[in-house]
Amino acid sequence: MTDPQRRILLTARPDGLVGPDCLSVEDAPVPTPAEGEALVRLAYLSIDPTNRVWMREQDSYLPAIAIGEVVRAAGLGVVVESRSEAYTVGDLVMGLLGWQEYAVVDSGDRAAQVIPPGLAPTDVLSIYGSTGLTAWFGVHDVAQVGEGDVFVVSGAAGGVGSVAGQLARIAGARVIGIAGSAEKCRWVTEDLGFDACIDYRREDVAARLAELCPDGIDVYFDNVGGAILDAALANLAIGARIALCGAIASYTAAEPPPVRNTFELVSQRARMEGFLLLDYVERFPEAVMGLLPLVVEGRLRYAVEVVDGLERAPETLNRLFTGDHTGKLLVRVSDAADRPV
Amino acid sequence: MTDPQRRILLTARPDGLVGPDCLSVEDAPVPTPAEGEALVRLAYLSIDPTNRVWMREQDSYLPAIAIGEVVRAAGLGVVVESRSEAYTVGDLVMGLLGWQEYAVVDSGDRAAQVIPPGLAPTDVLSIYGSTGLTAWFGVHDVAQVGEGDVFVVSGAAGGVGSVAGQLARIAGARVIGIAGSAEKCRWVTEDLGFDACIDYRREDVAARLAELCPDGIDVYFDNVGGAILDAALANLAIGARIALCGAIASYTAAEPPPVRNTFELVSQRARMEGFLLLDYVERFPEAVMGLLPLVVEGRLRYAVEVVDGLERAPETLNRLFTGDHTGKLLVRVSDAADRPV
Repeated sequence: MTDPQRRILLTARPDGLVGPDCLSVEDAPVPTPAEGEALVRLAYLSIDPTNRVWMREQDSYLPAIAIGEVVRAAGLGVVVESRSEAYTVGDLVMGLLGWQEYAVVDSGDRAAQVIPPGLAPTDVLSIYGSTGLTAWFGVHDVAQVGEGDVFVVSGAAGGVGSVAGQLARIAGARVIGIAGSAEKCRWVTEDLGFDACIDYRREDVAARLAELCPDGIDVYFDNVGGAILDAALANLAIGARIALCGAIASYTAAEPPPVRNTFELVSQRARMEGFLLLDYVERFPEAVMGLLPLVVEGRLRYAVEVVDGLERAPETLNRLFTGDHTGKLLVRVSDAADRPV
Repeated sequence: MTDPQRRILLTARPDGLVGPDCLSVEDAPVPTPAEGEALVRLAYLSIDPTNRVWMREQDSYLPAIAIGEVVRAAGLGVVVESRSEAYTVGDLVMGLLGWQEYAVVDSGDRAAQVIPPGLAPTDVLSIYGSTGLTAWFGVHDVAQVGEGDVFVVSGAAGGVGSVAGQLARIAGARVIGIAGSAEKCRWVTEDLGFDACIDYRREDVAARLAELCPDGIDVYFDNVGGAILDAALANLAIGARIALCGAIASYTAAEPPPVRNTFELVSQRARMEGFLLLDYVERFPEAVMGLLPLVVEGRLRYAVEVVDGLERAPETLNRLFTGDHTGKLLVRVSDAADRPV
């Protein structure tokens, strides 16, 4: 294992989208696992808005990626060498493996979990991974969506939003999406069964929400923040719940966009609550077992787009912020997980 | 009862502070109660930020005051004539009596409650009225303050804030106020027992909060909104609760001031929840019985300033927005409640 591997380091803090001036693609030795560690060959990377959050100077719920560090990202790979009882060669593992071809993991690292057999690798990083699980806990735990709720979700055609809307519908809610093109709106209404969808690039979101939700929004699942959040705040029902999942409008901005309608939370006695998937790690199996039958029965649909090549991770990440995607984006680093081991 | 009474009508929507061009002081006949109604002579008016909210064009949790209507406000008075079994001449009643000398109430109006004997009229409109009760439910129900919490309250020297901070301290929290002068800060720390107070006119609130709350804010009780809310959002502990009581920074503004740090609710898995006292009407007795021993034992202090004369209601209301007050402001309309009946 002395062949070099490629990896992508953060070399400067991006301003807006992630440009080549912020990253360095370099060759480095494949690391050697120490006692208690295992070596993982990366197969897929999960492309998530939070990758961009971690590139900022300011720490968030995890420390910022240091300049000179490999870009932090969730990924899935196959154990190719193990000096740990926790890992066997051939195991599929998921964790914060980073933008690189090989990663060393240890069993104390709860983020590097062995995946049970029988699940497709791309599903493990999408519907049974961060997107599906985030949607699950956001809808069921944070927002507690129930029969008859009017449920609105932004980023409706994204990985999390598309699943959240369907889970809300299955829970008995009337579901309205907000997305960035007519094609996305068509997908979530015609293919995913949303009751309606607002194209925020062409429509006045606040006015359309007022039309579509004359009695107000009971649950707003927010992936966007900023002006879209403000439009939702202006249309809340009494006792509304807002599950704050993300704020993609702010991750590439020098200053987060303003929100002005917070007083509506008082008038409507509403609750706005942020959540992070990492707080639910112990309950992942529960969510996977909840999602599995819905997928198998065809009641829950999801889209995954796989982009080939580690070096395309930066441009793929940028597509989250330009809105040029539908569903979940993955980058295939190697075919390690696609062949029988 | 054919002598005229004075009353103050809203004649135009104020822009900023409430000027004389928005109001008309007029003489009108004292109303005659119909069957099932009673006539109340006003004694005191409660001066509350919400009076100004109701003057805006936009409906809030109650409809906007219509142009030409008496200014809506909570008040306390004495029943002087009754055609209802619910009221007896001499009863002290509290309700939305308005900026006038006489009001008609009916027993279906749950906002016009008969006050049990033994409480001072000015206490009924302050510590046992909207300010004390709002503080009680905000601290105990919405924010669920407990032992060891770091509790921050804005508008700390105001009617609600000064009581909320003391209730949090009694519940075992470390309490930090935010107020608008050195004198107010001195009052809440030296007289009311707050652990610290930040003078927002002279100090960098976010920086001072970071110093005073190195492990973050567990509970933020917000009366202000805008920049102060943003400063608190930037300093939350994981799992923080924000009780949104009011947003006085926005009531007189053409556009509410921006809040930018909502993503901190995600990073810190924090909850921001608005509440209104009117949802707790059934539980007022519980709160009064909770406050009473604290007052009697001298553990809970409060300030009430009484301004004489109905015609001074507008200027007194404006003092809430210029910060020129400490504690609760009342306007005395008559001495009806100050003499034995």
